[in-house]
Amino acid sequence: MTRRILVLNGPNLNLLGTREPEIYGTTTLADVEALCAAEATRHGLQATCVQTNSEGALVDALHEAAAAGDVVGVVLNAAAYTHTSVALLDAIKATRLPTVEVHISNPHAREAFRHVSYVSPVAEAVIAGAGADGYRYAVDLLARRHGAA
Amino acid sequence: MTRRILVLNGPNLNLLGTREPEIYGTTTLADVEALCAAEATRHGLQATCVQTNSEGALVDALHEAAAAGDVVGVVLNAAAYTHTSVALLDAIKATRLPTVEVHISNPHAREAFRHVSYVSPVAEAVIAGAGADGYRYAVDLLARRHGAA
Amino acid sequence: MTRRILVLNGPNLNLLGTREPEIYGTTTLADVEALCAAEATRHGLQATCVQTNSEGALVDALHEAAAAGDVVGVVLNAAAYTHTSVALLDAIKATRLPTVEVHISNPHAREAFRHVSYVSPVAEAVIAGAGADGYRYAVDLLARRHGAA
Amino acid sequence: MTRRILVLNGPNLNLLGTREPEIYGTTTLADVEALCAAEATRHGLQATCVQTNSEGALVDALHEAAAAGDVVGVVLNAAAYTHTSVALLDAIKATRLPTVEVHISNPHAREAFRHVSYVSPVAEAVIAGAGADGYRYAVDLLARRHGAA
Amino acid sequence: MTRRILVLNGPNLNLLGTREPEIYGTTTLADVEALCAAEATRHGLQATCVQTNSEGALVDALHEAAAAGDVVGVVLNAAAYTHTSVALLDAIKATRLPTVEVHISNPHAREAFRHVSYVSPVAEAVIAGAGADGYRYAVDLLARRHGAA
Amino acid sequence: MTRRILVLNGPNLNLLGTREPEIYGTTTLADVEALCAAEATRHGLQATCVQTNSEGALVDALHEAAAAGDVVGVVLNAAAYTHTSVALLDAIKATRLPTVEVHISNPHAREAFRHVSYVSPVAEAVIAGAGADGYRYAVDLLARRHGAA
Amino acid sequence: MTRRILVLNGPNLNLLGTREPEIYGTTTLADVEALCAAEATRHGLQATCVQTNSEGALVDALHEAAAAGDVVGVVLNAAAYTHTSVALLDAIKATRLPTVEVHISNPHAREAFRHVSYVSPVAEAVIAGAGADGYRYAVDLLARRHGAA
Amino acid sequence: MTRRILVLNGPNLNLLGTREPEIYGTTTLADVEALCAAEATRHGLQATCVQTNSEGALVDALHEAAAAGDVVGVVLNAAAYTHTSVALLDAIKATRLPTVEVHISNPHAREAFRHVSYVSPVAEAVIAGAGADGYRYAVDLLARRHGAA
Amino acid sequence: MTRRILVLNGPNLNLLGTREPEIYGTTTLADVEALCAAEATRHGLQATCVQTNSEGALVDALHEAAAAGDVVGVVLNAAAYTHTSVALLDAIKATRLPTVEVHISNPHAREAFRHVSYVSPVAEAVIAGAGADGYRYAVDLLARRHGAA
Amino acid sequence: MTRRILVLNGPNLNLLGTREPEIYGTTTLADVEALCAAEATRHGLQATCVQTNSEGALVDALHEAAAAGDVVGVVLNAAAYTHTSVALLDAIKATRLPTVEVHISNPHAREAFRHVSYVSPVAEAVIAGAGADGYRYAVDLLARRHGAA
Amino acid sequence: MTRRILVLNGPNLNLLGTREPEIYGTTTLADVEALCAAEATRHGLQATCVQTNSEGALVDALHEAAAAGDVVGVVLNAAAYTHTSVALLDAIKATRLPTVEVHISNPHAREAFRHVSYVSPVAEAVIAGAGADGYRYAVDLLARRHGAA
Amino acid sequence: MTRRILVLNGPNLNLLGTREPEIYGTTTLADVEALCAAEATRHGLQATCVQTNSEGALVDALHEAAAAGDVVGVVLNAAAYTHTSVALLDAIKATRLPTVEVHISNPHAREAFRHVSYVSPVAEAVIAGAGADGYRYAVDLLARRHGAA
Repeated sequence: MTRRILVLNGPNLNLLGTREPEIYGTTTLADVEALCAAEATRHGLQATCVQTNSEGALVDALHEAAAAGDVVGVVLNAAAYTHTSVALLDAIKATRLPTVEVHISNPHAREAFRHVSYVSPVAEAVIAGAGADGYRYAVDLLARRHGAA
Repeated sequence: MTRRILVLNGPNLNLLGTREPEIYGTTTLADVEALCAAEATRHGLQATCVQTNSEGALVDALHEAAAAGDVVGVVLNAAAYTHTSVALLDAIKATRLPTVEVHISNPHAREAFRHVSYVSPVAEAVIAGAGADGYRYAVDLLARRHGAA
Repeated sequence: MTRRILVLNGPNLNLLGTREPEIYGTTTLADVEALCAAEATRHGLQATCVQTNSEGALVDALHEAAAAGDVVGVVLNAAAYTHTSVALLDAIKATRLPTVEVHISNPHAREAFRHVSYVSPVAEAVIAGAGADGYRYAVDLLARRHGAA
Repeated sequence: MTRRILVLNGPNLNLLGTREPEIYGTTTLADVEALCAAEATRHGLQATCVQTNSEGALVDALHEAAAAGDVVGVVLNAAAYTHTSVALLDAIKATRLPTVEVHISNPHAREAFRHVSYVSPVAEAVIAGAGADGYRYAVDLLARRHGAA
Repeated sequence: MTRRILVLNGPNLNLLGTREPEIYGTTTLADVEALCAAEATRHGLQATCVQTNSEGALVDALHEAAAAGDVVGVVLNAAAYTHTSVALLDAIKATRLPTVEVHISNPHAREAFRHVSYVSPVAEAVIAGAGADGYRYAVDLLARRHGAA
Repeated sequence: MTRRILVLNGPNLNLLGTREPEIYGTTTLADVEALCAAEATRHGLQATCVQTNSEGALVDALHEAAAAGDVVGVVLNAAAYTHTSVALLDAIKATRLPTVEVHISNPHAREAFRHVSYVSPVAEAVIAGAGADGYRYAVDLLARRHGAA
Repeated sequence: MTRRILVLNGPNLNLLGTREPEIYGTTTLADVEALCAAEATRHGLQATCVQTNSEGALVDALHEAAAAGDVVGVVLNAAAYTHTSVALLDAIKATRLPTVEVHISNPHAREAFRHVSYVSPVAEAVIAGAGADGYRYAVDLLARRHGAA
Repeated sequence: MTRRILVLNGPNLNLLGTREPEIYGTTTLADVEALCAAEATRHGLQATCVQTNSEGALVDALHEAAAAGDVVGVVLNAAAYTHTSVALLDAIKATRLPTVEVHISNPHAREAFRHVSYVSPVAEAVIAGAGADGYRYAVDLLARRHGAA
Repeated sequence: MTRRILVLNGPNLNLLGTREPEIYGTTTLADVEALCAAEATRHGLQATCVQTNSEGALVDALHEAAAAGDVVGVVLNAAAYTHTSVALLDAIKATRLPTVEVHISNPHAREAFRHVSYVSPVAEAVIAGAGADGYRYAVDLLARRHGAA
Repeated sequence: MTRRILVLNGPNLNLLGTREPEIYGTTTLADVEALCAAEATRHGLQATCVQTNSEGALVDALHEAAAAGDVVGVVLNAAAYTHTSVALLDAIKATRLPTVEVHISNPHAREAFRHVSYVSPVAEAVIAGAGADGYRYAVDLLARRHGAA
Repeated sequence: MTRRILVLNGPNLNLLGTREPEIYGTTTLADVEALCAAEATRHGLQATCVQTNSEGALVDALHEAAAAGDVVGVVLNAAAYTHTSVALLDAIKATRLPTVEVHISNPHAREAFRHVSYVSPVAEAVIAGAGADGYRYAVDLLARRHGAA
Repeated sequence: MTRRILVLNGPNLNLLGTREPEIYGTTTLADVEALCAAEATRHGLQATCVQTNSEGALVDALHEAAAAGDVVGVVLNAAAYTHTSVALLDAIKATRLPTVEVHISNPHAREAFRHVSYVSPVAEAVIAGAGADGYRYAVDLLARRHGAA
């Protein structure tokens, strides 16, 4: 059975490509997910992609990934919840899933409240401002570190 | 086809009229929604009213309104999420829907954490403490500014 | 004798229409005052309009309104003094005049020091970002709540 | 009809017993719920147990308990939402349900952001660090204070 | 020629006795000024009493007192300007007039912004919460310390 | 020899029952100590009760308990010193006595300075707002965890 | 039986007259206590004077005064404990003794940590910088307000 | 017609030369104004000098200068109002008059509250600590940049 | 002529592989530089690698790269200077060189002062916690975005 | 008569050697006092050693030393009171006794509240983290500077 | 021998004229230095100009100027080090060289971290936003005040 | 071969004896270094003394000491860089050299920004305000703890 990488996208990322393109570019969520799938395949892994606007559903998705037992790591773009969700921080710690935090734009070049991340302290790595490529690097990193069968 | 105003009410507002009447009065949510509908009609518009206790569902409702294409503006009482939700801020920016923030009571006369609003910086206008009339003013404002066919 | 609404405008509002029109629009102070007068008349009230650049004169105007005994409420755009004047806060409390705080633009979308208001905690309602219409809503609200003879 | 105590557990508590056992111990959520049921029975009451990872669902559960009319009090472990949810604070105030806040570990011995609780100011009592026994004490307290038929 | 004490009262103190009597009592400004005059007379001095709602006029009054040359000290209740006026602080320093700060109620038992005083650091003494008697003590103190011909 | 639980009460708790009964209720210190003794007896332990208004005497009492060697745990209501005493924090760490922090009322529903506790980070458990029952729960918890001979 | 005023002086005030005379002057504690006795006598009252360097002993003294039943008010110079003692704040509230806070020098003209007072919010009045005369005013105020048999 | 420079001096600057000479030197306001007049003349301009202790009058002076149409720039020493007046900030923005902020002494070498300037962000230049010469440099700068007919 | 990528490493990175290997791993600076060279070659670019412990020398290196004209981007691990150097921020803005900020470990999982970065707001992307792979991703990103001849 | 050095140890230091030996080592208070006595003797002085857990008693000890007249300086390890006691700061200033602050461990490597010292600003020197040797250095320093007869 | 003025420019100022011309203009460092030389000559002085990107080298330059003995004052534009360098503050105090702080643009109209200056409190004067003319004014001021042989 | 102690002095310490003698005394750097050499010799060690005004050079010196292999510890007076240099903190951690932080004066009796030390948390001991003797104590401490061959 092929082992998996969970690609988890948070609130408003379903609008990617249409939302504020001057900040986020024109790549759509489908493009990002395809990129992740290709990179996972390159490493002999499979990508499972989830997007939701609900904080609780993000937590649920992490729990399900941990319960499934075949997820080697999580690429997490928690979007707005990055800055407000202790629940996500707890979920990452509770599930012990290796997590790479990704942001399409660079939050540190934006409002002050985006400089705080509850995810970063428990993430293995943080990649911001690299656009869709950031997801690719994240999959690559998880695959190299945790993807060996 | 009649163009619409979305009237979006957040957590605990379903209890309006019964919840802390010394702060919020005895007007019910149904009363508020009827008032909005009447005011919309007066401007040749229709009011679609949604109430939810879930932050994610508020974001979903904004996305759906934007996707529908016939919503000229949003009357948003995000209640408690006003003070904690970066996701709502991002949703308003992402959908570019003209939004008027409404509060029944005056948050500035209450606890310090209610003085912070993530919605205000992206709202066209903010109306607080005007009770149910605040919704009426909000519909009037959106109709005048954005309601022309 | 006709009962009155006091429309009190603070510093720099005499320049309305010429001052930073990209923020405040092209409506002049005379326009705003005419709008208030019309709305007051619609409710069988009279509008008395005062503009001054002096904090002390704003306090004086509130005292005089309270002493006159026929003022049912105050529409107050204290402009810059909103953010710095404890004296205005004290005057509103001392005179017990029902007060609606109005701002033409939305202070919460501007500099951080404009997010603090000494007026808000003692105002019945706060209306910001609704342009000249905000004055109209304020007169309407005061008339409905306090205008009955 | 037997009156009820609502035992409400928040995000990640479904993982109890497996999640960071060095902090939370090996007691499972089922164990905790059984303990509550037993203690409720001892007082002639019934325990209704709900766990959810969604902030909105926690608010919904409180509303439903209040509407049911037979709930004498709530044992609430809001977990991560303790530190971020104004919506829960409002729900407790709006429903006026007597609430005892419970934490299995002691948040004050952990990160600074866990020292803030939006629930504490509206809770009748706060019990932290007593492990599963904390739930038992909470049921006992609610039963003694509010359980009399 | 009789030497003088300046009794300087700031904004809203003209309303004394009518303004929030539960905080400030029913003594009027005229009562306070009479009390000061009597106490000054007891020490062979004269009291000059000024009340104004304008910050600039308070500064002017201090300048005039210093220029007159016969003022031995100032009893200053700057009211709201206590908490906001650097200009008063500078005027006291510039004129070098011995100043006793008086407040009728106790600002430290009220809102946090009333705990800051720009006057206190340059006042010889501060008397708060002693009601009208505070003015009497202030006149007594200035007379004893600076009133000798 | 019977092993002991130290019940240590801090400043002003000798006035319990007379002091601000609207906050603390009418139970007296003697009542509380009797309750603790009964609960200790139920577990085959003895309760030693100490009350003092002196910070240093609280530290001394902890030292003596540790030196005695037969104290299995401490029920500590440090009252006001909870919020200011680093010395108590150090004494608990230095003596390594298992400690449960108890407050009769809920400090988090009171002034901001009561939200800080130097005791909490080194307490095994914190119980607040449960009235005299909080002491009973604390004795129960210490007896179960540390009372076995 | 003559009713009493308690004059309570805190840490280091026994050194008055020798300690930093450039700040505190050359009046000794004995002088201050004699002044208080004389002023009390003038009002038909007796002054009981206590000085201690111990926070707990200050609390004890307040308790004893309340228990005695013949103390009409307290002149309290808590010195350094003014700025650090929640226990004193609680003792004043618990005993409900009318208290006037006195400081010989003006703390607001000194270090920032002396600008915070735990006593002020529960004191009837605060008199600072008036030297020994401040004690005299405090006795006068308590006698007038609470001294009537 | 000769174009003008407005030299605007705020509160307490009328005392220049007598006020705290160890900080401000012995140059009088008349000296400063003469210096400005000479420098303006050197550039073929005229200096109009205004001093007032009133915040509102400073705003009025700026409005009048803008209305006159012949003022090429403003040399503004707002003194104490520098640190507290949002109204001045708004007036400079509203009138769009090129403004150079001048201080005789160096505020950054004084109290912390003098390190904040509401004028600086909208001033073209800030000159502090250069004594009366600072006014001369300010006139020179405005004349060179904006004085060409 | 081959275009270049500048790989700029700051203070203490010369000790890489020996310094705190539990945080930074055993990869040496030579390894990192070789990795960058290989990745640059893969994109038809050349890597120029500089390491220095001096803040000024880092600024110099950026200036020289900009002056050379053939540098397409900078991979910058400013190490400790990340958190303290405004000079680096200014140098990146002044030279307008596309910059990717890299950290071997994740600063957000470490001390609070490492959560502040003066580089992030002007960096195109930030990659942290990815070890030596982070450099590889940075070279890849710069090459794709700016490496085209 | 031999002149003296006062060695003053604060709360919990009586437990030295048993208290958290991983932080404070195994040297006992008796060892420390013997070391001080020996070092004092080496300089022809005598060491008087006092330990107490009471803040007031520390103040008393300083007063007594000053009154005795033969104390050349104080070695003060105020332990926990270092961080909370304004009374100690005042006592050192009031007695004018040369004081060297000593800590066995390095407070700056511990919790943030241990980074604040009320003693440091009035101490001649501060020695931390040097274990028992720190006391020896402190005696040496006081003896050299103030020990000459 | 001609006495000298040291003109000291800090990091990135070598790029003047090319660096962000919309903020700093097109004047080059050579232009600025020529302007300073001319102004110095006008006063019978010589200008020595130094630019460096190194904080330590700025300190060295101040030391050398002080040691040379013929430098009457320093025109210092420390650029980014203005906001971060305690070493420069110490060097100015240590060398006692009269220093005028100059900035080409107005830091107070930029990011918050540019509002803090370690140089200002020890500078005689601060001139910001006057472009290259600011250097000329600074040379003039130093020459007038300290240039007399 | 004799093992060594590195005595590392930071910015402006080359001016010791001439710089602000009222704070730092008249001992020169040469005196301090001679004192260190003598104390090292007394312990059979050698002192290597380095002074530099450059932060990077301080880091270099630590690296070289670690590389040399014969340095048993570092006496570090980082002067101004104490308060600003994360690079030094990292260098001490990276080299694992036992370090004693020394300051000639007591930073805690000076400006607030001198109360922060990046060196203290990683120093074995901190000695401040002991003048040149502080260096002697530091050499003694390092020699005793780490000097044994």
